[in-house]
Amino acid sequence: MEDRFNQPLGGNQMPRPGGPATFMRLPAAEGPEGLDAAILGVPMDIGASNRAGTRLGPRQIRDESRMLRPFNMATGAAPFAHCQIADIGDVPVNLFNLEASVEIIRQAVGRVAAAGAVPVTLGGDHTLTFPALQGVAEVHGPLALVHIDAHADVNEEMFGEPLAHGTPFRRAEEAGCLLNDRVVQIGLRGTGYAPEDYDWGRSLGWQIVTGEEVAGRDLGRLMAQVKALVGDAPLYISFDIDSLSPGTAPGTGTAEAGGLADWQALQIIRGLAGCNLVGCDLVEVSPPYDTSGNTAVIAAALVYEMLCILPGVPQRPPPRRHDFDF
Amino acid sequence: MEDRFNQPLGGNQMPRPGGPATFMRLPAAEGPEGLDAAILGVPMDIGASNRAGTRLGPRQIRDESRMLRPFNMATGAAPFAHCQIADIGDVPVNLFNLEASVEIIRQAVGRVAAAGAVPVTLGGDHTLTFPALQGVAEVHGPLALVHIDAHADVNEEMFGEPLAHGTPFRRAEEAGCLLNDRVVQIGLRGTGYAPEDYDWGRSLGWQIVTGEEVAGRDLGRLMAQVKALVGDAPLYISFDIDSLSPGTAPGTGTAEAGGLADWQALQIIRGLAGCNLVGCDLVEVSPPYDTSGNTAVIAAALVYEMLCILPGVPQRPPPRRHDFDF
Amino acid sequence: MEDRFNQPLGGNQMPRPGGPATFMRLPAAEGPEGLDAAILGVPMDIGASNRAGTRLGPRQIRDESRMLRPFNMATGAAPFAHCQIADIGDVPVNLFNLEASVEIIRQAVGRVAAAGAVPVTLGGDHTLTFPALQGVAEVHGPLALVHIDAHADVNEEMFGEPLAHGTPFRRAEEAGCLLNDRVVQIGLRGTGYAPEDYDWGRSLGWQIVTGEEVAGRDLGRLMAQVKALVGDAPLYISFDIDSLSPGTAPGTGTAEAGGLADWQALQIIRGLAGCNLVGCDLVEVSPPYDTSGNTAVIAAALVYEMLCILPGVPQRPPPRRHDFDF
Amino acid sequence: MEDRFNQPLGGNQMPRPGGPATFMRLPAAEGPEGLDAAILGVPMDIGASNRAGTRLGPRQIRDESRMLRPFNMATGAAPFAHCQIADIGDVPVNLFNLEASVEIIRQAVGRVAAAGAVPVTLGGDHTLTFPALQGVAEVHGPLALVHIDAHADVNEEMFGEPLAHGTPFRRAEEAGCLLNDRVVQIGLRGTGYAPEDYDWGRSLGWQIVTGEEVAGRDLGRLMAQVKALVGDAPLYISFDIDSLSPGTAPGTGTAEAGGLADWQALQIIRGLAGCNLVGCDLVEVSPPYDTSGNTAVIAAALVYEMLCILPGVPQRPPPRRHDFDF
Amino acid sequence: MEDRFNQPLGGNQMPRPGGPATFMRLPAAEGPEGLDAAILGVPMDIGASNRAGTRLGPRQIRDESRMLRPFNMATGAAPFAHCQIADIGDVPVNLFNLEASVEIIRQAVGRVAAAGAVPVTLGGDHTLTFPALQGVAEVHGPLALVHIDAHADVNEEMFGEPLAHGTPFRRAEEAGCLLNDRVVQIGLRGTGYAPEDYDWGRSLGWQIVTGEEVAGRDLGRLMAQVKALVGDAPLYISFDIDSLSPGTAPGTGTAEAGGLADWQALQIIRGLAGCNLVGCDLVEVSPPYDTSGNTAVIAAALVYEMLCILPGVPQRPPPRRHDFDF
Amino acid sequence: MEDRFNQPLGGNQMPRPGGPATFMRLPAAEGPEGLDAAILGVPMDIGASNRAGTRLGPRQIRDESRMLRPFNMATGAAPFAHCQIADIGDVPVNLFNLEASVEIIRQAVGRVAAAGAVPVTLGGDHTLTFPALQGVAEVHGPLALVHIDAHADVNEEMFGEPLAHGTPFRRAEEAGCLLNDRVVQIGLRGTGYAPEDYDWGRSLGWQIVTGEEVAGRDLGRLMAQVKALVGDAPLYISFDIDSLSPGTAPGTGTAEAGGLADWQALQIIRGLAGCNLVGCDLVEVSPPYDTSGNTAVIAAALVYEMLCILPGVPQRPPPRRHDFDF
Repeated sequence: MEDRFNQPLGGNQMPRPGGPATFMRLPAAEGPEGLDAAILGVPMDIGASNRAGTRLGPRQIRDESRMLRPFNMATGAAPFAHCQIADIGDVPVNLFNLEASVEIIRQAVGRVAAAGAVPVTLGGDHTLTFPALQGVAEVHGPLALVHIDAHADVNEEMFGEPLAHGTPFRRAEEAGCLLNDRVVQIGLRGTGYAPEDYDWGRSLGWQIVTGEEVAGRDLGRLMAQVKALVGDAPLYISFDIDSLSPGTAPGTGTAEAGGLADWQALQIIRGLAGCNLVGCDLVEVSPPYDTSGNTAVIAAALVYEMLCILPGVPQRPPPRRHDFDF
Repeated sequence: MEDRFNQPLGGNQMPRPGGPATFMRLPAAEGPEGLDAAILGVPMDIGASNRAGTRLGPRQIRDESRMLRPFNMATGAAPFAHCQIADIGDVPVNLFNLEASVEIIRQAVGRVAAAGAVPVTLGGDHTLTFPALQGVAEVHGPLALVHIDAHADVNEEMFGEPLAHGTPFRRAEEAGCLLNDRVVQIGLRGTGYAPEDYDWGRSLGWQIVTGEEVAGRDLGRLMAQVKALVGDAPLYISFDIDSLSPGTAPGTGTAEAGGLADWQALQIIRGLAGCNLVGCDLVEVSPPYDTSGNTAVIAAALVYEMLCILPGVPQRPPPRRHDFDF
Repeated sequence: MEDRFNQPLGGNQMPRPGGPATFMRLPAAEGPEGLDAAILGVPMDIGASNRAGTRLGPRQIRDESRMLRPFNMATGAAPFAHCQIADIGDVPVNLFNLEASVEIIRQAVGRVAAAGAVPVTLGGDHTLTFPALQGVAEVHGPLALVHIDAHADVNEEMFGEPLAHGTPFRRAEEAGCLLNDRVVQIGLRGTGYAPEDYDWGRSLGWQIVTGEEVAGRDLGRLMAQVKALVGDAPLYISFDIDSLSPGTAPGTGTAEAGGLADWQALQIIRGLAGCNLVGCDLVEVSPPYDTSGNTAVIAAALVYEMLCILPGVPQRPPPRRHDFDF
Repeated sequence: MEDRFNQPLGGNQMPRPGGPATFMRLPAAEGPEGLDAAILGVPMDIGASNRAGTRLGPRQIRDESRMLRPFNMATGAAPFAHCQIADIGDVPVNLFNLEASVEIIRQAVGRVAAAGAVPVTLGGDHTLTFPALQGVAEVHGPLALVHIDAHADVNEEMFGEPLAHGTPFRRAEEAGCLLNDRVVQIGLRGTGYAPEDYDWGRSLGWQIVTGEEVAGRDLGRLMAQVKALVGDAPLYISFDIDSLSPGTAPGTGTAEAGGLADWQALQIIRGLAGCNLVGCDLVEVSPPYDTSGNTAVIAAALVYEMLCILPGVPQRPPPRRHDFDF
Repeated sequence: MEDRFNQPLGGNQMPRPGGPATFMRLPAAEGPEGLDAAILGVPMDIGASNRAGTRLGPRQIRDESRMLRPFNMATGAAPFAHCQIADIGDVPVNLFNLEASVEIIRQAVGRVAAAGAVPVTLGGDHTLTFPALQGVAEVHGPLALVHIDAHADVNEEMFGEPLAHGTPFRRAEEAGCLLNDRVVQIGLRGTGYAPEDYDWGRSLGWQIVTGEEVAGRDLGRLMAQVKALVGDAPLYISFDIDSLSPGTAPGTGTAEAGGLADWQALQIIRGLAGCNLVGCDLVEVSPPYDTSGNTAVIAAALVYEMLCILPGVPQRPPPRRHDFDF
Repeated sequence: MEDRFNQPLGGNQMPRPGGPATFMRLPAAEGPEGLDAAILGVPMDIGASNRAGTRLGPRQIRDESRMLRPFNMATGAAPFAHCQIADIGDVPVNLFNLEASVEIIRQAVGRVAAAGAVPVTLGGDHTLTFPALQGVAEVHGPLALVHIDAHADVNEEMFGEPLAHGTPFRRAEEAGCLLNDRVVQIGLRGTGYAPEDYDWGRSLGWQIVTGEEVAGRDLGRLMAQVKALVGDAPLYISFDIDSLSPGTAPGTGTAEAGGLADWQALQIIRGLAGCNLVGCDLVEVSPPYDTSGNTAVIAAALVYEMLCILPGVPQRPPPRRHDFDF
């Protein structure tokens, strides 16, 4: 069955350090047509407010994805046995004009969605999620959203500008992209300008789970409830790597003390298996601050987990393989 | 109300990468007079026994504090709405003479305390806490102490010397700075010279909670008991960044496997809200080993949390903003 | 009593940054004769499939072990009071010929075992564990095995080769080195080529505990059961540093998202105290990816913990030193 | 005499790792009024086409300038004995809008020039030089220009945009800021889009000296001729750190093989002593790529050399202090 | 004319941080057929004797080549206007078996040569040059060789092995691949096992120019003589990045003090324009030691210069564009 | 003949990444007795005024010396064929007391000199040269000195202290250790407190050659004259790695723009062959700022060159091995 679909280049065909620097060493494709999911990059950081560098995020996530093998040992998912997936390259954003870039992204993601493929976007700064949501909503209508982040990213504006990496979800809501009763934000924490910073979303009906609430905990129960809330609505997942602890994922620009462990990040995505995933992104990986490359290693694994919950990919969790009871 | 007090320079007035490299981009002040709390740096590492580099800790903590906004989303604290806080710069330690430096620090911290301000000291190696405790105790009398660290720092001497980063709490006790029935050490772990290494403090009545006891756990209950023990005594908090895991906070000189997560570190300080905080420090950040800058990011957040529990700052924890039950 | 045995060079005799770069600054020895345990290095990475660099692992683990003091504050173990331990240097592997190196390692480790000493091997890539197990099994017969790793390392072959860092445990089993009813693998996770990847071991009777099962949890209960299973069989411990989270231990070559915390790694080794330890290794530390040196710091601590559970070293866990109840 | 002017904080008053992180630890000033020269930063990288990170350049140049002492041992210049110089902080650029930032910079630099002070600008990406030239030319009229760079930066546009770090000198020429017969570009090299890339400037009468022509050579004769060409015209110096070799100055975004040595960079600025310097900048330092900090060390030294050739600063080269003849 | 040939993806079509991670963002090709030159990578370091890491060299050279534009401003060469060039990806070497890899490389390079294309190989460790020379010589007969390196790489064996990165040129000579009267080694320096280390080549008639002889000097005259010696023989260029100074090109495994500047490296390749280039390589780039990426930047520029001297590429050095005389 | 003397462990006996981390993998010795030269380390940085980290310099220089082979290809020197050389480990300095350390160093170096061996000291900060000169002068009387450095290090005091890394040569002169008519300082440059900074030495008759005078030049003629001046006096060489360019040798604490190339550094030491070398040091290598390790590579090579000019080591420069004339 696998022969019908693109497969990642295997480690026994080409050593891991070689091969094309596409995501998981998948075949490159010119466009999304005929795909179930399309990996695309947005090499941009001009929406970032603190450190820069996420413009190289897509390149490094792809580079460090070279170790990933096709089968998910935890969930039994085998995305490349059930879906046609390719890396369609980068969106030609205009690095000198954020407004123009937003429109370019909207069209690029929209083209993917219109072709019937799930856009899986590698960032790049979080500004990209506004036009990505637009592009997907134009095809699927208003979306359920699970947003994992240290920040709510619902500022009215930043430095007087409506478009920046701290505003995408307010812009998306204003543009009618969201099903407000099916929006969940997980991991918010840190400092703000006012006590009301998270209340805007809540007032719309969003569910807001702070970093303090999830710290150190098994997230299985939470995610079951999130999944129930999402139901069968078209779902978009936006995963900001700064939701993780600055110690676990140093390669990012607006790090906040506290935050998720990597195993919790995996739990969150796995917990959404069975939803109607229509779009997703992994954003804010900044390679210059990722001296070991392991922030990109973790980011690539999270993107892989998103592929593992694509519609049509069965989840076959394996049996316990030990006799212990603990 | 805020207009009465110094405010951090906001991200909508000056982009985060710019502005003065003071703590949180607060105004600089010549001295502590008129302040409720004074940030001061001790650019020193000549008391360090293993790796050096903490002499640049104050500079990097300030640099990476540029992202912090004024309001604490977790606790509702708004320190700059209730206190006058400024960065009074660095203590001119003598890098070639540790004994002389200790006296210089004692006077500098003592001047802050005498002015009625809480000294919030950025280290620098842990030697500084002995003269800092002296300076504060000269004004407030013997102090309760909450000391978070991988090490007890109660050596009789190091290499034959009474002053070093492994001796400050023994020296402080000998100098009468401590209320021995209100001293708590949290996070001690690793290797030692003898089984008695932690017993000296215990024999005086100190409470010693090891790293193994707290690993991975929610620390709310512990901190409630610590807070009760401290009571209304004048409290000094000394936070050594090596209390955290070497993976979470690599930028330090005497790293020990095991150790706190960053969210636990936040819990510890937040758990002391309501105490009579009269002095505190954050020590042992060594920038050359902090290649991403995120050890300093975490350190800056912890210093900010100390400001959030200054006397007179109300804690207004927000309501839950979701409908989940987990 | 201590005078009878080699002692690590103390920090009050020679500052920590100085002294010989042997493990814990122990005396070097020409060979294993007369020792209870021998530290040896295997400076090799030619069995590695993704990133290289573990050839320098032994040097950096030794370098960063300079901070370790002789007494274990958590368990009360004092290995240098009860055992003769020395650093016998490196195995002269052939970096251009993996097959030849495997034979060189087998002989070197076998010589240690034959001399009655426990080989404590610093890697180096995981290929070394196959010949190490052979060398030990030639003396002690088939072995119980506790293997901590992100990967099962039981591939039939890699790139058509039987010897590589992904095959040692299959080779060892085939060579009759293992007691299949006393083999435990802990921490396996990530992606694979097929759902059966872990089943080969399980079909032989091995106990396989995945990374997902242990994430974030106290491992005391698990380890008690593992210890019971091992019983009094001769035990080999193989600890791959990539069992830890890529955020906690970045300095390794085949990092996998998720994984152990450092405090859990300590729990695992401590949980095996009382077993009949006859050999052990700590592998896959890759210094070029360990920019702070702290992966080596953690690795050195884990090797030290292995010394603390050598046969004949009493465990004397100290009493609680506080009055809290949490 | 020195008492009349601001002095850098000395290393015997405050250890080098401490003190304010202003340029050379000079006093900060609110504005340029009353100054002979004003140091200002432009924390921006949104005009950069390849790597980002120069938004943190001003902070790091200031940080690493802490070692500079007041007296120039090579030229005898003592700028702080003859000029009032202060660090006036950063220009509040809009990181989300390049066009808006260009206007903000023009006003900020213009204010400095209008106050009679020489603006000494720390970048930040090279886009800033267009508005900086505008701001200065509004006061002093068209300017002579010495531009040291790997790139001509005279593109008609980049990605369709007129404003970017590859266009400032074309924009400045179009805006009438330059005396075309007194424009010199030094160090241009690398690859281009067409053979005509450098011809546009030449066609206007600019002098273009390539990197190949100066590689490895003493630049004394060249600079004497450059100085003669500049004559008494108001002079602006724009120094892009990527004019240096990528090995010597790694911390930059558009590195080109070949390039100046650091001693040649010093020769170039020293060779312009006696000119009528009315403005200058040092741009394109990108801290994330400067792992040792030494690109900033070199950049800070070059900025210091600019201060040493301010009008009114005597050059008093010392006599030879040896008896050798070589 | 350009439309006939592959062109690098331009910076105005896709921002530099995006686009495919092929060399210069050229189109990828399945094989060498129809090409004038083929870029191929050899992701290998198992022939390396000191530091590892060159297995990732091809990936990083490609990544950092993203800034290169098509036209050579120094020499007037426009390779993509005259040649069909593509990136044909990596050779699937066997990372666990050096002997097998050598044969795999011989076939892969031989296929390129047999197709009439010039193989331009990105290393990888220097072992690859032996099979690369074989592969080319099988098509073109014995070759002239210009070898730039810190080391002669003519060891009889290393650790008893005939194949390693210190032996390729002895093996190639023994295999009859070289025209001994047209072999030039440039840059040799450092330490050796015996005074005769360089004499073996000399005894065969090779020309050996040491690092000391070229240090700091303009190499125009030397290269004219080298070019004359090569004459019209088929020429192979092997460029080891460790020929450069360890300060200029830190990202390599067997660094030797002294060595070329980057501008000298450019001179060497440019000096061979007009020769009958039939094969070339750039080896020993080790990304883990190249923290800024600039060793790869320089390496990519040198590979580009090799493309600029492909047969059929006119050299059109531009006129001087200034009026100075120095 | 070689069998009579210690030999570095060869690369064909033990792979370069393995073996003891002594200098060049030479045998360790307990003391200097019976040696012609003794390598010793001073793991200290408490005399440093700006960045710290040189306390780990001896460890890293030794580590990176592992590549050095016994024979000098440039000069024909074979030190291990003519001298008994060993690594005698580190001096147990007191890291908390600079004055005590100075006395400890004086005794340790003095013991070496008294044993008839040449002390070859690895630093560590430059403070050590004062007691090293004392220790040597006590045996050999006043010394000729060749001092290569960016700084004169003749301050009267630093921060009021007589002992620091900026004062050793003034202290040594005051202590009568120097032959003032045979003292040469090479490479001084940068900024100072007053024009007289270099005049103190000159007034005593010292020869002072600035960095500007030597930049980019062949130093053969200079060194011939320096050698003539030194004559047959007992000679001490003190080499501060910051004499090199901050780009070439980033791993140091008080970097100054400009400075020597690595090939010039080699020329300086080679130019002193034939002098009566009685002591030498290589100081100020700071590993935390040496991210590639290549500053230590260069430092190790320079120390090796010092061994090559030990009294009794013949210089046998090889003949030219090419037919070119350039």
